[in-house]
Amino acid sequence: MDSGTERYSILRLSGTGGGYVEDVVVRESALTIILNDHELTTLLCSPTDLRYLAIGFLFSEGLLKSKDEIKRITVDERRGVVRVETEGDGVPDGDAVFKRFITSGCGRGASFYSAADVQGQAKVESTLQVSASDVLALVQEFQHRSETFRATGGVHSAALCDARDILVFSEDIGRHNAIDKILGKCLLDGIAANDRIVVTSGRISSEILLKVVRRNIPLVVSKSAPTSLGLRLGADLGVTIIGFVRGKRMNVYTHDWRICRDAKQG
Amino acid sequence: MDSGTERYSILRLSGTGGGYVEDVVVRESALTIILNDHELTTLLCSPTDLRYLAIGFLFSEGLLKSKDEIKRITVDERRGVVRVETEGDGVPDGDAVFKRFITSGCGRGASFYSAADVQGQAKVESTLQVSASDVLALVQEFQHRSETFRATGGVHSAALCDARDILVFSEDIGRHNAIDKILGKCLLDGIAANDRIVVTSGRISSEILLKVVRRNIPLVVSKSAPTSLGLRLGADLGVTIIGFVRGKRMNVYTHDWRICRDAKQG
Repeated sequence: MDSGTERYSILRLSGTGGGYVEDVVVRESALTIILNDHELTTLLCSPTDLRYLAIGFLFSEGLLKSKDEIKRITVDERRGVVRVETEGDGVPDGDAVFKRFITSGCGRGASFYSAADVQGQAKVESTLQVSASDVLALVQEFQHRSETFRATGGVHSAALCDARDILVFSEDIGRHNAIDKILGKCLLDGIAANDRIVVTSGRISSEILLKVVRRNIPLVVSKSAPTSLGLRLGADLGVTIIGFVRGKRMNVYTHDWRICRDAKQG
Repeated sequence: MDSGTERYSILRLSGTGGGYVEDVVVRESALTIILNDHELTTLLCSPTDLRYLAIGFLFSEGLLKSKDEIKRITVDERRGVVRVETEGDGVPDGDAVFKRFITSGCGRGASFYSAADVQGQAKVESTLQVSASDVLALVQEFQHRSETFRATGGVHSAALCDARDILVFSEDIGRHNAIDKILGKCLLDGIAANDRIVVTSGRISSEILLKVVRRNIPLVVSKSAPTSLGLRLGADLGVTIIGFVRGKRMNVYTHDWRICRDAKQG
């Protein structure tokens, strides 16, 4: 059992009776992110990889551009606080930050699909192509890796992959957090994210799309569904979206030129 | 096909080949909520029941206490804006609102589990008891109702129920939104929520718990998992939490005195 789970005594009922048993539940904790002494936000998350989560979040929100800007990261696991100090001041003032966080910083709130926003967002530039059988193999490996999910049924997973292997893997109760964790680890550990593949257990919504676009990642794969706004962004910003990967089937929604159909059979 | 879905042309690949087909995807739209001329937040949601979603959200955030405070609700479906005008001014000023929305307003951000917060939150008072077979029957009916999910695989559902029937049902791409929609409808249409049951397709996390506690709802049921923080809040605030309802089985995590085990067999 990792630190992402804890034990809990429950009453388990079945058709024929029931009794008290010990079960495993997924942990949920608050993480407060402080950037240059400004308390930015508090996320609910799985209390693992807090450093990666904080850095990935700051990057996804456009508050951090590269590892070089980071002067110090202090993680207080007990209190659930990560402090990040950067070169310069690094925080837009008052209302601008708050506004940003209200409209796009939170898992729940984002209004970025205006023409102006998308014009400002650079398209993904990548000539990556992969075979359908590579995608199937990656998803199969991805599902084997998600141990907390198998124990508790309560977490999402995300992975950064190349066409052959999972390079970085994370779990979190939030699908946005799981992606921020892998992207934060890439940034801190110097793992290139461009030309790579993101596999996620969750739906491919607009917010997930914008996170991968910021890292110039051309391919997002899920066993779940995409949303209409995720697809519009993927089509406009050059991202290939694959959903409902199950067994040997998959749906390719956007930029299907990246998927080679006459693939080697794995 | 309802307004929660749209058609999309996709490349469907299988083990033996593939081709272009028309598929149905779940719609995702931005909804901006304006309270007394203050732009509060923009949610990503399914573009249905926007009026209920806005009112439920304001209630869940503590910015609205009762239907009597509402002077006017204006819904602009095309632009995705709901304006709510209330008696008095009704909006705490500047930083207080922003702060609130950063730390607890967003699906992703909440830091409310401090001793002080929970001491301030009234416990649920209800003597409701239901049989295990009633719970199983409600969940079965609930799963039959989720049409968009069956079409697209991309939405969450929530329902307010009594021990026999589903009274209010909603779908949304966000599990928080689906609950806010049912609670908003209750508030506007005068449907009592206290002593009722909430069934949700999603995980029972701390944020879901706090929404139901605000409406004095004593029982939350899901086929998915609860989180550790959801369970702590449920235990402390008097809410019975049932998870993993599948077939004839269920896990009762907190306040199991509300579930009668010697039930009539349905």
